Amino acid sequence: MPGDIPRDGQGVLRFCRSIIDATRDLAAAYKPNMAFFEAMGAQGFEILELLRQSVPQDVLFVMDAKRGDIGNTSQAYAKSFFGLLKSDAVTLSPYMGKDSIEPFLEYEGTCSFVLCLTSNPSAADFQTQTLQSGEKLYEKVAKTAVGWAQGKKGEIGLVVGATQSQYIGELRKWVPDTPFLVPGVGAQGGDLGEALKAGRARDGFGILVNVSRQVLYASNGNDFANAAREQAQKIVKEMKEYF
Amino acid sequence: MPGDIPRDGQGVLRFCRSIIDATRDLAAAYKPNMAFFEAMGAQGFEILELLRQSVPQDVLFVMDAKRGDIGNTSQAYAKSFFGLLKSDAVTLSPYMGKDSIEPFLEYEGTCSFVLCLTSNPSAADFQTQTLQSGEKLYEKVAKTAVGWAQGKKGEIGLVVGATQSQYIGELRKWVPDTPFLVPGVGAQGGDLGEALKAGRARDGFGILVNVSRQVLYASNGNDFANAAREQAQKIVKEMKEYF
Repeated sequence: MPGDIPRDGQGVLRFCRSIIDATRDLAAAYKPNMAFFEAMGAQGFEILELLRQSVPQDVLFVMDAKRGDIGNTSQAYAKSFFGLLKSDAVTLSPYMGKDSIEPFLEYEGTCSFVLCLTSNPSAADFQTQTLQSGEKLYEKVAKTAVGWAQGKKGEIGLVVGATQSQYIGELRKWVPDTPFLVPGVGAQGGDLGEALKAGRARDGFGILVNVSRQVLYASNGNDFANAAREQAQKIVKEMKEYF
Repeated sequence: MPGDIPRDGQGVLRFCRSIIDATRDLAAAYKPNMAFFEAMGAQGFEILELLRQSVPQDVLFVMDAKRGDIGNTSQAYAKSFFGLLKSDAVTLSPYMGKDSIEPFLEYEGTCSFVLCLTSNPSAADFQTQTLQSGEKLYEKVAKTAVGWAQGKKGEIGLVVGATQSQYIGELRKWVPDTPFLVPGVGAQGGDLGEALKAGRARDGFGILVNVSRQVLYASNGNDFANAAREQAQKIVKEMKEYF
């Protein structure tokens, strides 16, 4: 927590609200990661519900949760994220296959972003392994997951890390219209321009780039909100060069 | 909720405590699934903390969470499950690789059960795909994940569904000493005897079989706790035939 913000639940709430207030006209979406709230126990969930109410109506609320479980269990997760928290989108893990994702697709007007090629170094452990068919695992995941949305109320998107820019363009050829959620710009080292050039959809959009730490922790003093706004402005300006 | 148990948070707490009281001398572990608590919001986490305190000292507490995220985020999840909830074990998803699991291995005396071959029908979407090396993906996951525990404080185990009995024996040959968590017996159709015969470790143990719905919902009347005890006794008796 920067400046005088206390390192407790009330501090987290104050910090996040200040960031939202400072960037609400600049951000297309906010993407809280469930882990940091869960680490505060019950209070963390209360804070998340309050934060959800602080997000402007015209800004998307994306819950980064990376969930995935057998059908009746995924149904409970879907209830938590789409029912209780009224999220517009959620991130999910594909390892358990179609029936672990389907319950999320029952919610009209939502997007389920399935992990495809993640921004962390260990993505190579399994995601870029080559299958007997010649496809990489993340390629198989992309092509398969996109089909799950057929006839469903919810949409399927893919999580593709900005640090994987050598793969984004190829991936885009296989799934030309699917929304991409692209984390990894900034602290993780991904390049914004590369991601935008390679990752936009056939209509020229369809890409949601996430920058977290570079904005949130732009200053560790009491000017953190202004500093966050400056960083966000800088990023928006840079993005506009590509549209 | 069976019988007169109200369908609210207090009801869930009363129900789960009754099940624990009725089976505490029979169960080696309790494995709550985080999804069903998360679906109740902040109150769900409070109930889970109270339940944690109801589990006898000599019975393991396994949090079924199937988490996995980049390093600093997984650290927060590890804090939630091992720090706050004092779980003995947790289930995790392998899709993001080693650095998504490592933060959990910093907790002494814990086991991180990595999803390997799950009990749901869609496990075939990716887990049983063949890699160019000739290995199936779940085989690669098993062999790789087991190595992550080297030099760490925590242990690695694998989740292997009881419905996958044709694969359990082969898997056991590759990782002869790794603890297996085996869900899918009962409602999901897995065979207890088959799982035990094929899945036990080199020392004759190393297998934790989970039966959920068959015990929890043994009766939908007010005799649910007694009925759960009877089912648990029946399962323990059947298990003993294989040891």
